[in-house]
Parts: sequence; structure tokens; C-alpha cells
Amino acid sequence: MKKIVILGSTGSIGRQTLDVIRNMPGKFRVVGLAAGRNWRLLASQVREFRPEVVVLEREQELKNLRDELACDETPDLAWGRSGLENLAMLPQADIVLVAVAGALGIYPTIAAINAGKDVALANKETLVAAGHLVMELAARKKSALLPVDSEHSAIWQCLNGLEQRAVEKIILTASGGPFRTFSKEEMENVTVDMALFHPNWQMGKKITIDSATMMNKGLEIIEAKWLFGVSYEQIEVVIHPQSIIHSAVEFLDGSVIAQMGMPDMRLPIQYALTYPERQPGCCPRLNLTCLQGLTFEKPDTGRFPSLKLAFEAGKAGGTMPAVFNAANEVAVDSFLKGRISFTTIPFIVAEVMEKHLTVKQPELEEIMEADSWARETGANLIGTFEHA
Amino acid sequence: MKKIVILGSTGSIGRQTLDVIRNMPGKFRVVGLAAGRNWRLLASQVREFRPEVVVLEREQELKNLRDELACDETPDLAWGRSGLENLAMLPQADIVLVAVAGALGIYPTIAAINAGKDVALANKETLVAAGHLVMELAARKKSALLPVDSEHSAIWQCLNGLEQRAVEKIILTASGGPFRTFSKEEMENVTVDMALFHPNWQMGKKITIDSATMMNKGLEIIEAKWLFGVSYEQIEVVIHPQSIIHSAVEFLDGSVIAQMGMPDMRLPIQYALTYPERQPGCCPRLNLTCLQGLTFEKPDTGRFPSLKLAFEAGKAGGTMPAVFNAANEVAVDSFLKGRISFTTIPFIVAEVMEKHLTVKQPELEEIMEADSWARETGANLIGTFEHA
Repeated sequence: MKKIVILGSTGSIGRQTLDVIRNMPGKFRVVGLAAGRNWRLLASQVREFRPEVVVLEREQELKNLRDELACDETPDLAWGRSGLENLAMLPQADIVLVAVAGALGIYPTIAAINAGKDVALANKETLVAAGHLVMELAARKKSALLPVDSEHSAIWQCLNGLEQRAVEKIILTASGGPFRTFSKEEMENVTVDMALFHPNWQMGKKITIDSATMMNKGLEIIEAKWLFGVSYEQIEVVIHPQSIIHSAVEFLDGSVIAQMGMPDMRLPIQYALTYPERQPGCCPRLNLTCLQGLTFEKPDTGRFPSLKLAFEAGKAGGTMPAVFNAANEVAVDSFLKGRISFTTIPFIVAEVMEKHLTVKQPELEEIMEADSWARETGANLIGTFEHA
Repeated sequence: MKKIVILGSTGSIGRQTLDVIRNMPGKFRVVGLAAGRNWRLLASQVREFRPEVVVLEREQELKNLRDELACDETPDLAWGRSGLENLAMLPQADIVLVAVAGALGIYPTIAAINAGKDVALANKETLVAAGHLVMELAARKKSALLPVDSEHSAIWQCLNGLEQRAVEKIILTASGGPFRTFSKEEMENVTVDMALFHPNWQMGKKITIDSATMMNKGLEIIEAKWLFGVSYEQIEVVIHPQSIIHSAVEFLDGSVIAQMGMPDMRLPIQYALTYPERQPGCCPRLNLTCLQGLTFEKPDTGRFPSLKLAFEAGKAGGTMPAVFNAANEVAVDSFLKGRISFTTIPFIVAEVMEKHLTVKQPELEEIMEADSWARETGANLIGTFEHA
């Protein structure tokens, strides 16, 4: 039985991870859970999965959780960043699934790698902001980084241990989101509700907006670069509205290997957990003959500048991808609060990147400083928009 | 430099193999060539590739070839089945590509395996008729059987060394041929010229007719069973008119890995030759965004009874697949000569299978007897059609 720690268990990926585990009885033992502030859901997860250690973001919700749980079912409780890092290093854990949102996910990821754990990585910021540090550390500690994103899982499955020197390019598919066919003018009038409706995937709010701007694909480009050791010239984004081909790899000889499935995050999650084995689980089966047809389009970087910005940030390297990511986080947050328009999101990101002086080969501290700087700079810019 | 012997060098697969080699200078040395009766083309191949040994089917064409070649360019010459078998065992050869047509391809394949050669197998009859013998022999002699068919190459690339116990099913794609959308009535009036026009693939006459009847897919079902060690229940045929996905594998967890590419036989040929490496070659690149869309349909076994017959023959086992194949060969030959109609082809096959008493676990001799019996029985049946 594999022993697993789940960081971010009350979020979309965390809940789906627990669903995968629920449907594979006898295969996994949940030894640790961490969540943000949703102590009510966490309490019910604790009752069902009986973890040994539980962590919340703040002491306040931890007290609520302690009061809620009966004495006989209380695990060890901790809170805050140190609680999260300690949980990521839990001696009895075989694998740590990192699904906490935001740049703070970097700390427990590094802690887990340092402790030699295999890490199932659903936190995008880790590789975007600190790819050069994390990949080097994982190689040194012989810790496996198992992608949980459907696209990176697809690429990983297509490569299946093949050497990266056989790769011609990586074909990262993108649904194109809800505004794929919108004109530039229509995109200016996009509301929050419109942007929160994704045609194929059920996800959290932040990532759903990122899908609509294609900023999500931008982050994935940078992640793919680090995970698979390719150059940015070897990464191509292809719009595939049906989200059946989750990504593909073109090899030197022209052969293309693609991974396909229903759009259901439980499949990549399960593969990361059972790797290197494949086991029957709870994922719906793909029936090719029931599909309406698979189509492919070139992305339009005019209407979706995020892709261009991502390549620019990635190629600039150093602290720039962290800035790209942080500026986007504040812009999305402001959009969700109705403070800026949809098309202003990439504009803010571009402006903040423009102002940034890249630090080459940064240490973690410099990355976090650039992250804070970008958030502050972005927030100031957003202020000028509001008052305009 | 890999040393290669090509059996069937003047046929469609043989010529494309030489084109692959021509486009990868320094990678291969052609040490032996064998052809049927096309001594003129063989002569030009000898001049270009300078093999050490050359074999033709009959002494007569061998004399023509000797007269044609100047003294200084004459390789060792031989003819007939023994010549073919000796060439398949050529000590200096690393790999033998078997692209001779028909049941006779079994003999050199077995000879090559017995000599411990890796065999790139384009001859369908070998596995259809003698799969149980050939797979057992290859395992015992530690000889690799490398599929050259685009579908089997696709499955092989999708599996990429993964264990067969992780496989849920094999999805064998089929273009559906030129009569995919024909009604039963329209199919009764199909002419030879109509049947020789394939929408996606340029191939030899026999295999083009087999594509039109879907008998080709039937043969591939039986080959797939042997090559990948699955049961017939694990093989599904899906019509995919664009021939871009060359086949796919569904794993236990529901993940589907597919191999894609332009419809060009040089890709699977090259992969068989360079395996386990991938190298740049002469194959055109797939550009997903230039495609009109990929569609999938269920096959109609009412209009294409060959698929049902193939599953029946495969499940019956023993000598039945050899009978299925041989009856089809005589029926196709008669169709090409204008002696029977297109829809009579599967009818003949079904009738001959009906009359056959399956020998279980047959030796090669019994397989060849069943093959001869089926040809004779098929020919007699065809005679009654002509005189009716």
C-alpha cells in the first residue's frame, strides 16, 4: 500500500485525488492532509480517510477543526508554512501530492524533494518560478517529479521513458477556452460569469480564468520546458477544442505519439499515483466512435497574447517567469473582483514584465522577491486603471 | 552500420525500404536482395546498393539478370525457395526485412528467426497462418519480430515496451477503404478499377483489394493477436477515414495512447529498421492544424463480412486462419481477373471456411496442406460461380 500525503486536499485537484483513492480500495493509505481554510470539508475528509497528520493555513481554523472532531478521531494537528513543510517531509509518506495553489506551493515541494519523496506536482508555480532550482534538486535527491496536469501527464505518457534526444517537438494542446471563437471586440465585453464557464473541464476559479485568457497554457509551456528538458523552440501550442487529445510528442522520425482520454482530471492524477503501473480506476472510458470529430487550429496570439508573453518570459528566464506568473495572479484576482476587464489581464502582465529587470540564475529568495515586486507593481498598475 | 537483407525488394514495401535507406546515408548497408521475377528493376537496385547476394524466384530471370549486369558488379546469385532461405540466414546480416507476398513468406521468415536474425515483418501470412509456431520460435531464438505494417507499428510504438498486462484493448484503425459509404447494392457493382483506387494509401494490387473488402483488416486482427499477445476480445476495429491515427492502445486505467502520422509506409519501415532508436528520415511531417478533422465510425460487418470472418477464423485457431487467408488469395486473384464479383470474395472465403475441418496445434506442414486445400476448394467454388 502506497502511503500518500495530499497538500491542498479541499481544492479541486485534492478532492479528485481523494475520489481516485476512494475508488481503489486497498491501494493507498492517506497519511497526511493539508488544506487552506475549509476546515469543515477537511473534517469530513479526516473522518473518511483517517490521516495521521493534518495541517491548516491558520491557527484559527485549526481550533475549529479540533472542536469539530471527536477525541478518538483526532490526528496530529499543525498550521502554517512550517506545518505544511513538515507534512511534506513526513517520514512514513512514499509520495506527496502538491495541489496547494500559488507561489507558496514551492516551499512544501522543495521540502518533499529534500526528504527524497516522490512528488506528484499539481502546483504550477513551482516549475514556472523555480524550475531551474527544483529540477536540479530533484535530480540530485533522486526524487521523481510526477506531473498531474492533464497536458504534462499526456506528454509524460507519450515519452514513456524515451530519451529526450529522440524528441522533435512537444505538441501542447489547448481547448481554446470559452472565447476561442470570440472577436477582439467581443472579448472586451467578457464578464466574470462568462469567463468562469469552461466548455470541457471542471476546475477551480483561478485556473478557469487562466484557461479563458490562455495564460494557463502559457504557464504550461514553461512547465513543459523544465519537466521534459526541451527548448522553447521545441514547444508548439495547438488548439484542439474537444480536449480529447491531451497533448502529443513528435519524434525525430516524424512519428507523433498522442495521449487521449475523456476530459477528467482523475486520470492524470491516478497515473501519477500508480506510476509506473497502470490500474483500473474510476475514470470514464473514451469511445472514439461516439465523438463528433477531432479538430485542430493554430492559436491566435493577437486575441490571446498570453502565449506570446509566456514564451518571452520563459526565454528571458531567471526571475521573469515568476514575474509573469505573479502579475497574472493579481490581475486575475482583480478581474474576479470586477476591478479590471478581461482583456486588461494580459495587458497588466505585459506591463509588469516590461518594468522588470531580470535576475539571472536566481536563488529561491530572489525569486520570491521578484514575485512580491510583481504583485505590488501589478496592484499599483491596476489602481491606475480603476481610477482612469 | 546495420547490415540488412531485403526479401521482396521490387515490391511496394521493398522499394519504399530502399528509399528509406537511400535517405539515411551511412546508416545501413544492403547485403542481400531478393525479388520475384522483376529482374530489370532488381538490376538497377543491384547497381545502386551493391548487395553481396541476390536471389530471384526462377533460374530463367536469374540468367537475364546475370546477362544484364557487367562482370565487375555481379553479386552472388541464387534462385528459388532454397536461395531465399539461405539469403534469410546470411551470416553478415543483422536484420532481415521480409516483404515477399503470400504464404511462401513463412519459409524465409522461419529461416531468419532460426539464424537468430531480427526480422522486420511485412509479410502478413506468416503470423496469420503460423502465428503460434513463429512467436514461440522467435521467443526461443531471442529474435525480435519488428512489425512493418503501419497499424502494428503504431500499436508497438504505443506500447513502447509496456507490459501487455497493462493493456485493456487494442484499437486497430481502418480507413474503411474506397467503399466505406457504399450501399450493399452499390457494392455489388464494384469494378476492379474502382477497387484498385484507395483513398489514402499507395500499395500493391492484392493489398489494395484487401483494403476495399476490409479483408486486410481481418488479417491484421489475427496478426495483432500474435504480435501483442492479446485475446480477440481485446481487439476493436474502428473506422477512421483520414488514416492519421494509425492505431491506438487503451490501457487498464482508461488512458489511450495513439500513434499518428501522415499515411506513408516509409515511417513504419524506418522505425523497424532504426529500432530502438529514432532518427530523422525522409517521411513527411504531420501538421495537425492543416487537417480537416479526424472522425471515427463503427465498422459495418453487414457490408464488410471479412471482419466477422477474421474473428471467427482467429478464434477457431489451428489451421483455420491459414484457410481464411488462402481462400481470400484465390478469390482476390479471380476478382482481379474479372471472374467473380467484388461481393463474392467474402462469400468464397466463408464457404471454404465452412467446409474446413480445423487441425488444432498444426505443424508447418499441416498448415501448408490446409493452405493448398483451401486454394483448391476455393478455385472449385469459383468455377461453379463462373458457370452459373
